[in-house]
Amino acid sequence: MAFLQVTFRIEAPADEAQAVAESVLLEQTVETPAEVAERDPYVREHMMGKITKIVPVSDGAVLATMDLPTVTASLDVAQFLNVLFGNASLHERVSLESFDPPDDLLAAYPGPQFGIGGIRERLGVPVRPLTCSALKPVGLPLPKLGEICRAFAMGGIDIIKDDHYLADHPFTPFRQRVDACQEIVQEVSAQTGRTTIYCPNLSGTPDTVRRQMEYAQERGVGAVMMAPMLLGLPLFAELVRSHSEVPVLVHPSFAGSTRIRPDTLLGRLFRMLGGDAIIFANYGGRFSYSAETCAGLARAMRSSWQHIRPAFPVPAGGMTVERAPELVNFFGNDTILLVGGSLLAAGDALLERTRAFTDAVASTVPAADDQHGRTQAQDI
Amino acid sequence: MAFLQVTFRIEAPADEAQAVAESVLLEQTVETPAEVAERDPYVREHMMGKITKIVPVSDGAVLATMDLPTVTASLDVAQFLNVLFGNASLHERVSLESFDPPDDLLAAYPGPQFGIGGIRERLGVPVRPLTCSALKPVGLPLPKLGEICRAFAMGGIDIIKDDHYLADHPFTPFRQRVDACQEIVQEVSAQTGRTTIYCPNLSGTPDTVRRQMEYAQERGVGAVMMAPMLLGLPLFAELVRSHSEVPVLVHPSFAGSTRIRPDTLLGRLFRMLGGDAIIFANYGGRFSYSAETCAGLARAMRSSWQHIRPAFPVPAGGMTVERAPELVNFFGNDTILLVGGSLLAAGDALLERTRAFTDAVASTVPAADDQHGRTQAQDI
Repeated sequence: MAFLQVTFRIEAPADEAQAVAESVLLEQTVETPAEVAERDPYVREHMMGKITKIVPVSDGAVLATMDLPTVTASLDVAQFLNVLFGNASLHERVSLESFDPPDDLLAAYPGPQFGIGGIRERLGVPVRPLTCSALKPVGLPLPKLGEICRAFAMGGIDIIKDDHYLADHPFTPFRQRVDACQEIVQEVSAQTGRTTIYCPNLSGTPDTVRRQMEYAQERGVGAVMMAPMLLGLPLFAELVRSHSEVPVLVHPSFAGSTRIRPDTLLGRLFRMLGGDAIIFANYGGRFSYSAETCAGLARAMRSSWQHIRPAFPVPAGGMTVERAPELVNFFGNDTILLVGGSLLAAGDALLERTRAFTDAVASTVPAADDQHGRTQAQDI
Repeated sequence: MAFLQVTFRIEAPADEAQAVAESVLLEQTVETPAEVAERDPYVREHMMGKITKIVPVSDGAVLATMDLPTVTASLDVAQFLNVLFGNASLHERVSLESFDPPDDLLAAYPGPQFGIGGIRERLGVPVRPLTCSALKPVGLPLPKLGEICRAFAMGGIDIIKDDHYLADHPFTPFRQRVDACQEIVQEVSAQTGRTTIYCPNLSGTPDTVRRQMEYAQERGVGAVMMAPMLLGLPLFAELVRSHSEVPVLVHPSFAGSTRIRPDTLLGRLFRMLGGDAIIFANYGGRFSYSAETCAGLARAMRSSWQHIRPAFPVPAGGMTVERAPELVNFFGNDTILLVGGSLLAAGDALLERTRAFTDAVASTVPAADDQHGRTQAQDI
């Protein structure tokens, strides 16, 4: 019988750890006293799971690894989350460290439909890092967003995305925004011969998001953005699997609210559910992830993993044009650098500043191209 | 202009707090440097929000209250979450303490469709606390679940719910389970003259959950259970609003993974989105909530709040029959006591133990009936 292997971090001294781990195992399996569960032979044989390893870590916590039965976990995304970290999340001392689904469970998940190779192919950019910027701030009227979109496209940005606060607002209604921005990137592409992707943000009720996705794809957009933790993971997964025909850019809004290790949530779970390029808060910006955490995120997104295509890491969050060479060196070529405010701060010189950014990215050759779990030649 | 008032807890010494609060305000509004955002008059006037209060709390943290523009927050649940705690959740030092929507925003949310009064009416139980138990462990074949269901119903349980791990499994397929359990509670009700509600757990992809809800309602079930954090809040809200004709019991699975104060998430947000009865980990059980936190949860669920009906608090999680009088005294009459494993542990004596539980609840008169934010006379 195949098991879902899950590792929890438990804040407890080593002598209490076994008891806490056992209670977490019960919580994530039969959720009754063991003597009740074990009365039934099928339950006893198939439902109990087991603890396979408890490793003390330096700071008074342990990593407890357990095998959970896949018969309960394998039905759908909601049930998978339930078994992965449902009730265990209610234990303050427990956080989710990592998970490893068995092949038969993983086979039910398509992973990214495009991944690094598919996005590169759409853009016709085989090697260098990609560039991305955001249309913002929310509240700008559509003509002003359009001007920014044009400057980004003329300046050589590969992917122009909506700010994640842009929804179907009266000041920039979704359909009008998609029409206008998609027309602009097509016009500029026709002039320059360079493909630029416009990527609208999808947000709303399940029905609304589905309609937005259909509309955007009919208009020919090259990608769409969604925030899985805002929409809910089952809805996100269903949209990717059943409705999406373009690469999916993942936004991390609300994802930091979890007690799940970032590379597990953003790098592994979002990728497994179909994210092609995944935005995260980069080190040295507005947020507090360390360089080590960011390297781990990139590794989780790009590492070899059965049939699951590698996804692009998209470091973001207060990045500056000046840091482009450093970031190319740190993350390597298979990266999308997302710079927003640092371009917009240029005001009337937006086009020049955008060009400075895209030139810096194009002209930097990373010192070594095997950074954080991936060589450039893979999967392109 | 009406504002969404949000209070964040920020772990920072008082002299840094102002700067951190300002960065959180930018993050939750225009998400660009202020000088970029302020260039546009509409953005400057309508999108910036403001900090209204910073109060140091005893342990070296502050509570920062800010007014956020509702024009960005009011479109739908996903966007509301985005503005409430989207990117701010990525700041490790920031957690969500509380929120207060203005009347025009709140008016867009129906709250519980039944609430305490509606559930009491369906059961014909005007005053005493209600009782609830769970069909488990997952893995039991349907006939065994049916036996447990019958014993609970004969023993006087008001609401018999599925364990939250029960999904559409091969060993207890959803439709067969609903057919069998609903037939049992109807049979027993016909014998005893007492209404018993069977409450199936809905889980799956968005389409599946919708179909499950329709099927269960066609079969006449008296309530349904959903876990909003597993399904995603937009899907949960849409299902309640557009598809549910019965009371909704809310399960907290995956809800503990957030850095949101429990009464704010479970008591306020789940209630606002339509939860009629909300399960939480009680003090003194398997989980670590304090009695004070639980009192706050009950208060948040039952307090008077515009047009939003009060919801039942459902303390659970390792409760025992023996604690019934204590819990009735602590939570008062307008409570649903959920006891699972402590009944099932009785084995062959399940019916007797169930009767002991329901008798204890029925015969305990709480010392005072204004516990935790609510008097019994309200809304029944």
